[in-house]
Amino acid sequence: MDLLKDLGLTVPVIQAPMAGVSTPKLAAAVSDAGGLGSIAVGAVDAARARLLIEEMRTRTERAFQVNVFAHAAPRPDPDREAAWLAALRPHFERFRSAPPEVLRVIYKSFCEDSRMLETLVDAAPPAVSFHFGLPGKDTIDALKAAGCRLFATVTNLAEARLAEKAGIDALVAQGYEAGGHRGAFDPSAVDERLGTLALTRLLAATSPLPVISAGGIMDGAGIRAVLDLGAAAAQLGTAFVACPESSADDAYRAALARAAETGTVMTSAISGRPARCLVNDITRWARGDVPPVPDYPIAYDAGKALNAAAKAAGEHGFGAQWAGQGAPMARPMQAAQLVAALEAELRERVPMGPHLN
Amino acid sequence: MDLLKDLGLTVPVIQAPMAGVSTPKLAAAVSDAGGLGSIAVGAVDAARARLLIEEMRTRTERAFQVNVFAHAAPRPDPDREAAWLAALRPHFERFRSAPPEVLRVIYKSFCEDSRMLETLVDAAPPAVSFHFGLPGKDTIDALKAAGCRLFATVTNLAEARLAEKAGIDALVAQGYEAGGHRGAFDPSAVDERLGTLALTRLLAATSPLPVISAGGIMDGAGIRAVLDLGAAAAQLGTAFVACPESSADDAYRAALARAAETGTVMTSAISGRPARCLVNDITRWARGDVPPVPDYPIAYDAGKALNAAAKAAGEHGFGAQWAGQGAPMARPMQAAQLVAALEAELRERVPMGPHLN
Repeated sequence: MDLLKDLGLTVPVIQAPMAGVSTPKLAAAVSDAGGLGSIAVGAVDAARARLLIEEMRTRTERAFQVNVFAHAAPRPDPDREAAWLAALRPHFERFRSAPPEVLRVIYKSFCEDSRMLETLVDAAPPAVSFHFGLPGKDTIDALKAAGCRLFATVTNLAEARLAEKAGIDALVAQGYEAGGHRGAFDPSAVDERLGTLALTRLLAATSPLPVISAGGIMDGAGIRAVLDLGAAAAQLGTAFVACPESSADDAYRAALARAAETGTVMTSAISGRPARCLVNDITRWARGDVPPVPDYPIAYDAGKALNAAAKAAGEHGFGAQWAGQGAPMARPMQAAQLVAALEAELRERVPMGPHLN
Repeated sequence: MDLLKDLGLTVPVIQAPMAGVSTPKLAAAVSDAGGLGSIAVGAVDAARARLLIEEMRTRTERAFQVNVFAHAAPRPDPDREAAWLAALRPHFERFRSAPPEVLRVIYKSFCEDSRMLETLVDAAPPAVSFHFGLPGKDTIDALKAAGCRLFATVTNLAEARLAEKAGIDALVAQGYEAGGHRGAFDPSAVDERLGTLALTRLLAATSPLPVISAGGIMDGAGIRAVLDLGAAAAQLGTAFVACPESSADDAYRAALARAAETGTVMTSAISGRPARCLVNDITRWARGDVPPVPDYPIAYDAGKALNAAAKAAGEHGFGAQWAGQGAPMARPMQAAQLVAALEAELRERVPMGPHLN
């Protein structure tokens, strides 16, 4: 596909989906500014997804992306879950609370959610993207027949080859710099941790599909860099967290503003899958000697409960404060302004250091 | 400093020093082609370093870089070293050999090598670079007084600030993609694992010094990308390993040619410090349950002995086959040809995927 033309983008910028942080308001502002706005429905049910897509359509006439989680089903393990809750118990007690009795599977994978598939086929958003893996052939065929362009997050060459064979239209090359959940298909496999630069270039050189580069990109210089590497567009998440239209809470915004001091870290301790987070109390705890984490998203039930208990006690260092390695360059501005700034930096070559030409 | 002008470079390409792999022949070919060739003297004594620098001067009239290891002194720990040797013993026995009785400190740090300093001050190579840390003020002053331009590898913002304060002339921004030894000043500190894209942009945006970007860069597209991020030049290592002028052995070259299948991994098991290596027998072993590795370069004494025993038995999977994440893009060609190809790709915008302009 011709990514920009087919979706009507006038600037090669995609706002990353970011379940729990993106909003229709944010996404519509990005789409209206010429980029591709995105919402995520991996953490909501089909009925709520339908409302979100309807809201997108009332807010913008332009293309947008709807993201789903296509993870393998978790394997519940009561012993592992009990040990995990026991390890978290001192934190809960500090916040005058108690851990949940049992942990639930809080998100259904899109791979086994026929109602969500029906909703997406019916609503036919212009682009649908898969994170954590690929759904089956029938699902892909149904979405393509509905006219959806399909993106898949990949973190290495092998995943890219699987996405190509499955009939995906564009690859989201997620470098190790990227904030939030790492999209690796199999979280138990060895992760080569390919950086955005290396992964983008490797995919652009070996794939017939357009590449959307993600991870560490915060400004026009970063976008230009990945275009030079052969990407068709850049997907930015952390840059949009700081926009007032995101649903990030004040503590998250404050933590993002301190990112130059704290940095980020990849941790599985919040959700059960590796995700890049601003260094905070929970990521520091997880660096220590902790028991094996339950499968995603079982662990996330505990993580969310702990964060709720902490926030109720006025502590804000236990949240999923996802951010990429470029976090120190986040700029709090309206989404439309941010897209305009990115476009200006990209097109006008706003001074970004020495250049040859 | 004006990096390109001060060193007379006509192409913003630096061949990474690569102790054990680079040669004066390789370095001189790169310098003669308009880049900056480099040799490393961290693994040799001052007398040998003098000869290498003399050889560089007979081979080229252009600028070159001499790299030293500025690591903190290792802390010998006989128990840890004995446990390490015991863990390696089955490998040695498989190769009808035995581990060394004791492990020696095989490399002296430049920080405590007054003869090396005298040699460098006397020989005054155009550029001297530090890896693993910074030497003291007197050393830096002496080298600057001798007319040497000073580079320091940094892997994060804090190390960059230390290098700036120390009077370094240019920062080598080593992304997590980079092959060979990670230049982190303190290997016991938490490594944020900043990717080349994020690190380059963060340093270019915050440092008054020119930035030399390293990690995953293999072609003109990669060079252009880091220049767009604000780098003054790109430093390529893995791309030059494949040149016939390098001292890489046949097994290393063959492993590099298979990199798309094997990938790379960061391991401390070969030398005692994290270094990115092609996945091979020793890195696979190190992924398992192994005892704590001795300090660098004490562990390297064992690693080198094991590789020698393996090679004598016809096994080639135990070597320090350093490579970066861009390894699948290595092109075996003469160094002069490679520099010319990089320059052509960079200047002529050889097709590298979609561009806005």
